[in-house]
Amino acid sequence: MSFSDIALACVNQLQPYVPGKPIEELERQYGIKNIVKLASNENPLGPSQSVLTAIAEATKDLTRYPDGNGFVLKSALAEKYQLGLSQITLGNGSNDVLEIIARTFVSPADEVLYSQHAFAVYPIVTQAIGAKGVIAPARNYGHDLQAMSTLLSERTKLIFIANPNNPTGTSLADDELEAFVAQVPPSTLVVLDEAYVEYGDGTADTISWLEKYPNLIITRTFSKAYGLAGLRVGFALSHPEIANLLNRIRQPFNVNSLALVAATAALADDAYIAATKQLNDQGMAQLIAGFEAMALSYIPSKGNFITVDVERNGLDIYESLLQQGVIVRPVTNYGLPQHLRVSIGLYAENQRFLEALSSLLGRPL
Amino acid sequence: MSFSDIALACVNQLQPYVPGKPIEELERQYGIKNIVKLASNENPLGPSQSVLTAIAEATKDLTRYPDGNGFVLKSALAEKYQLGLSQITLGNGSNDVLEIIARTFVSPADEVLYSQHAFAVYPIVTQAIGAKGVIAPARNYGHDLQAMSTLLSERTKLIFIANPNNPTGTSLADDELEAFVAQVPPSTLVVLDEAYVEYGDGTADTISWLEKYPNLIITRTFSKAYGLAGLRVGFALSHPEIANLLNRIRQPFNVNSLALVAATAALADDAYIAATKQLNDQGMAQLIAGFEAMALSYIPSKGNFITVDVERNGLDIYESLLQQGVIVRPVTNYGLPQHLRVSIGLYAENQRFLEALSSLLGRPL
Repeated sequence: MSFSDIALACVNQLQPYVPGKPIEELERQYGIKNIVKLASNENPLGPSQSVLTAIAEATKDLTRYPDGNGFVLKSALAEKYQLGLSQITLGNGSNDVLEIIARTFVSPADEVLYSQHAFAVYPIVTQAIGAKGVIAPARNYGHDLQAMSTLLSERTKLIFIANPNNPTGTSLADDELEAFVAQVPPSTLVVLDEAYVEYGDGTADTISWLEKYPNLIITRTFSKAYGLAGLRVGFALSHPEIANLLNRIRQPFNVNSLALVAATAALADDAYIAATKQLNDQGMAQLIAGFEAMALSYIPSKGNFITVDVERNGLDIYESLLQQGVIVRPVTNYGLPQHLRVSIGLYAENQRFLEALSSLLGRPL
Repeated sequence: MSFSDIALACVNQLQPYVPGKPIEELERQYGIKNIVKLASNENPLGPSQSVLTAIAEATKDLTRYPDGNGFVLKSALAEKYQLGLSQITLGNGSNDVLEIIARTFVSPADEVLYSQHAFAVYPIVTQAIGAKGVIAPARNYGHDLQAMSTLLSERTKLIFIANPNNPTGTSLADDELEAFVAQVPPSTLVVLDEAYVEYGDGTADTISWLEKYPNLIITRTFSKAYGLAGLRVGFALSHPEIANLLNRIRQPFNVNSLALVAATAALADDAYIAATKQLNDQGMAQLIAGFEAMALSYIPSKGNFITVDVERNGLDIYESLLQQGVIVRPVTNYGLPQHLRVSIGLYAENQRFLEALSSLLGRPL
């Protein structure tokens, strides 16, 4: 007997998420030092002082369990977004929130709808349940809401929309997105994944839509602009009835105690977000200028990353960049075999990547 | 329409885990200061210096994702337990590990077997899947392995055994436990939950059983003796094939980066474990002496807690203790309505609890 025989069929078929290669792993494998990682859409600024201070104060209580209700962080989120505490579900990163949503509502008989080239976690949480994933073809590498509408069926329990989308950086016009949400039947949930929303122009007020569309769930994260990828905090904003159900499936201590205090501090640190956005805008301009100098086409992005067409096998270029100590993200598994996704780093990191790519492709900068 | 109507039936029926009341919550609710918490089996020593140092060094990388493979911590565990890295599954606390095991192997058509008065997470992870929980009656508040054998059926996919058990502190003789494991069919998994193993006499060598019984999974945690409840690290040791399956369901970044470095430091800190055990032995003797002075019976415990029969409604006594700033754990939901579970604290904390209880019950110490 193999243990696969007694595991659930959906688990056997599951292809786990492939993270960006950690710096330490590349060091071990290739013996390379001075590595630049532009692979996981992390904030290149490093943690803010307010976060470090909050963590240092909280470490004395490490032997205590976290507050399973996350009262202080939820209160801060409720104040910022003008919602009730009962509308918030905290997660161990937004990955956890996305999984909790699927496990609360989706049975193997249901369908989950998402777009081609959208975030890999949507198919994974769907497959982990044994439900049917329905993939809408993309338009210009982004969500084609018309195509998604067409694929809505009576069995569609959940729709995932990433805005901006990862890994392509595409975004949807607010009015177009709201019109889509408005026509989804009330018994189908729409998850609007806004992991990268802080990098946008801030004009959309999707949180105010929650009142109009009770089947809407907005997910956000502290892993990107807030700079807390290592600590794992994400959250969902929703109708209180939905939050009540999600919190039943949620593990009681899913968010750790340092994450709770760090996220509370980060949420109040407007200066860090402003510096993050400014650095990102500058780095984005730098990479785009480099791509244009090399005559490479790229997908215009509203995130903290940009996906570029290297006109060769992306995995090969990825490997060659690794050998030069530059980690980017291949996106072959997203159906983009000639593209690479590059996170916006510090000026020198971006430059190191551009020079390595230029040299590999034989295209001067 | 209510959103309950579109949620899974098992989620609607789920009674979430009720954690020990956090100190801050009692402060908010009752305006009490100087609170003693003996409610969550936390390590009263506070974090070790080696852990604090490891965390302080790692905070500079907080904006980076954790190593999803947990290479360094797994290597340390593999070295300590003389196992392969491929036999280890890391979890966001052992709660996460227990849930991952259930979600990997158990379908709604399966049965999960556990004991009366055993850890509340076993029924919760079972119900969250919609599987059938089968509860074996306890013997002397602990596992009755004979009764559990009798309840084994062809549908039993998973057996949970807590040794020592929480909340009763009971433990099983090694030979009796091994004989039980040996007679379980190879297609039924046995999860041996050893969250409190470090408080025992260290004679059992259950890890060596993994080779003999490939269907055995041992789970342990850094939340108790290792003093890292706030950071959430647990792990499973198993056959590599089982670990491979568990790691498919595991969220890619389920253990946060400070937890990974803290657990690695804690694992090497033998002096902290020795001090923890000594303090626990002294506190256990102190509480037992107090109970005997008050002529209260208690369940002999191998953990860092003890469960005492207060001969009154446990919830009432719990509430009265709260008003005096002492948090313990009612165990009515464990089928023990006249008992309270008390974690071993520092000498003064234990004394404060004993005096408050003595005064409430009118029984001199």
